Amino acid sequence: MRHSNRIEADYILETHIAPEKAAQIIAGEQSSGTFVAVPGETPELKALAAAEVVSLETIDTYTGRPALEGRYPTDGAMLIHRVKMTLSWPLATVGTSLPNLLATVAGNLFELACVSGLRITDIRLPVAFFDKYKGPAFGIAGTRELSGVATGPLVGTIIKPSVGLTPEQTASAVSELVTGGIDFIKDDELQSDSDVCPFDQRVEQVMRVINESADRTGRKAMYAFNLTGELDEMRWRHDKLVSAGATCLMVSLNSVGLAAFLELRSFSQLPIHAHRNGWGYLTRHRSLGWSYVAWQKIWRLAGADHMHVNGIDNKFSEDNETVLQAARECLTPMSEDKPCLVMPVFSSGQSVLQADSTYSGLKSDDLIVTAGGGIMAHPKGPAAGVQALREAWQAAMAGEALSSAAERSENLRLAAGIRA
Amino acid sequence: MRHSNRIEADYILETHIAPEKAAQIIAGEQSSGTFVAVPGETPELKALAAAEVVSLETIDTYTGRPALEGRYPTDGAMLIHRVKMTLSWPLATVGTSLPNLLATVAGNLFELACVSGLRITDIRLPVAFFDKYKGPAFGIAGTRELSGVATGPLVGTIIKPSVGLTPEQTASAVSELVTGGIDFIKDDELQSDSDVCPFDQRVEQVMRVINESADRTGRKAMYAFNLTGELDEMRWRHDKLVSAGATCLMVSLNSVGLAAFLELRSFSQLPIHAHRNGWGYLTRHRSLGWSYVAWQKIWRLAGADHMHVNGIDNKFSEDNETVLQAARECLTPMSEDKPCLVMPVFSSGQSVLQADSTYSGLKSDDLIVTAGGGIMAHPKGPAAGVQALREAWQAAMAGEALSSAAERSENLRLAAGIRA
Repeated sequence: MRHSNRIEADYILETHIAPEKAAQIIAGEQSSGTFVAVPGETPELKALAAAEVVSLETIDTYTGRPALEGRYPTDGAMLIHRVKMTLSWPLATVGTSLPNLLATVAGNLFELACVSGLRITDIRLPVAFFDKYKGPAFGIAGTRELSGVATGPLVGTIIKPSVGLTPEQTASAVSELVTGGIDFIKDDELQSDSDVCPFDQRVEQVMRVINESADRTGRKAMYAFNLTGELDEMRWRHDKLVSAGATCLMVSLNSVGLAAFLELRSFSQLPIHAHRNGWGYLTRHRSLGWSYVAWQKIWRLAGADHMHVNGIDNKFSEDNETVLQAARECLTPMSEDKPCLVMPVFSSGQSVLQADSTYSGLKSDDLIVTAGGGIMAHPKGPAAGVQALREAWQAAMAGEALSSAAERSENLRLAAGIRA
Repeated sequence: MRHSNRIEADYILETHIAPEKAAQIIAGEQSSGTFVAVPGETPELKALAAAEVVSLETIDTYTGRPALEGRYPTDGAMLIHRVKMTLSWPLATVGTSLPNLLATVAGNLFELACVSGLRITDIRLPVAFFDKYKGPAFGIAGTRELSGVATGPLVGTIIKPSVGLTPEQTASAVSELVTGGIDFIKDDELQSDSDVCPFDQRVEQVMRVINESADRTGRKAMYAFNLTGELDEMRWRHDKLVSAGATCLMVSLNSVGLAAFLELRSFSQLPIHAHRNGWGYLTRHRSLGWSYVAWQKIWRLAGADHMHVNGIDNKFSEDNETVLQAARECLTPMSEDKPCLVMPVFSSGQSVLQADSTYSGLKSDDLIVTAGGGIMAHPKGPAAGVQALREAWQAAMAGEALSSAAERSENLRLAAGIRA
């Protein structure tokens, strides 16, 4: 940190006015300035409270249409500057508060008329934030310990169909998966608590299966139960999970929000599997919103243990390099004293086919890989799907080609769609 | 409601594949489907759990570049369909839960590869949601009663500079404003609790001024204190406000999130002034994210009393029709039994100049208008600024031109920048 008592954020800014002027307007709007000079904005106050433009670096200047709608001087093409901008704020006026940090680094600035594009790409926080916030309680080591997976990825799946199964049907699917040796199972983000599949009954039915299997085998599959809901509901559900012997909970970050998430972190005795559904509306236009590098830092410091990063060759819209950058970031320390490392969770259209490219891209085996259809739809059933995915990862980590490993394994051949 | 037991949402979808197919993929992803067929997705389960494509209506078909980045078959222009799509979900699998509703109607769908643009434009909820959730505790009538403003807009301002003033300096500004007869004052969203302006001391200093003025005049200006923070902090701050005699609290919705907001609603004894900072990243690209019509329904049902809508001729990027549509929506009943009407809050570059167009566009005087610089920077001081803004609204409501009213008032002339 260059400024130990200042908050810094990086942006990609697009503007049709001089970038220096746009940056000053943004810094003013997000600190002591207003649209017109007001009497109280003295030099002393500005020295205390003003946001500072730390750096401004031109990426590109071009004539074209602005990326975002706005009140512009003309309707057509204009000269647009695309710049990398870093702003900083004094801790003394922002306070050591993650919720209020959001209003400062990601508040009204996206709407300013001089902004034709704005994306927050990184955040750096003073040490006071790391002293105050807890970060992950379990992280990588805690997740490995609870799941009994000492090395290699946690091989996992998502219960599918996402919704519509009863607690009994869910438990029946889980039974097949744990018999097949799966490490990790999660609810779909659409499945929390409903008439068709009430949370409490799902927990009872599923944990009976998992506990019985653990008693037999000595290894307990980690099931991330989606307890997303109101705060009281999340408290009861958490306590239900603890008393039933569950080892993980899942929550949808954009559904509950940051303050409730911090509260959940404060009472949770289980690892928090953080689901990012809704991420698309925060990120999918390159000239707007959030990069995952910036966004995941908030949730890691707030206490997430597992963070979703999409997957290589996913069925969504993110490219592979964005996915890998997100996953690497989860494994990059946020500070020396509190690294806040979390398990990246690969999902979306995952199968044995992505093991090699994921491992070679990430250069780490600290991850959770969840294949929904990739496991559940295996021609020989979910247990064969689990085995095939594990074999694919063993081959990738040993530097063996999938086709070579598949010669020894019918399950892997079937999973890879390779005809004998 | 066509379906009393189904949740409905409207979208504008852009896709490069057949719209019918894209809609089915989205409905599948957001309910019982997955990328590949899985054994458990039986016809019975689908009948119970599947999302339904209620309607699909072509808006436009054109050849062009997709609005959002993605994994497309070609790099250049392609045939794109822009359609209005309505989906519905059964309550039995979603549950009566606002947080889980978000994951369902606004979860992973924005990221799907067949989606080159997706914006949620409206939501309709079954009666069970209105039975469960409380809606605004104060709304329009409660706000008018507490502020003593029986008719016309609440004339208000935002403390500026946004940050940097001490509690004493804040109270001094408030003193001038309440002497000038202001109805409503709010903290800036950047100002919550910090070393320079601690929350508790700000409340004590400001409420001393407001209470003394109320004792003298019989009318208490409403001050919305920004208590945004963690849940415990918000509880303490709320209790501090109640004991100090405050009549409003403010919270940044995107900073705290929905579950903490619902908790705040459950214990708050004061009207909740809901600030939408960060709204830009949710809405500013026309082919992505949220329309305010959809978004504000969530927060109104959750219990907001005042919702920000930007302002006519604002200094941000929204056009006037979007602003007026948002404000009208706040005054449109959500259901017969629980209309959830809230005060729309006009702000951003507001002054006497927008009174007429705001009133004629909204056709209601149920609103809060906040002018920051527009009041604080009045040449004769904030009290003159308050008086001028009130006069401008009286003229607008009486159908009198601003220039005509300004002939009788020097304060109004000065505020309008009219030379004598």
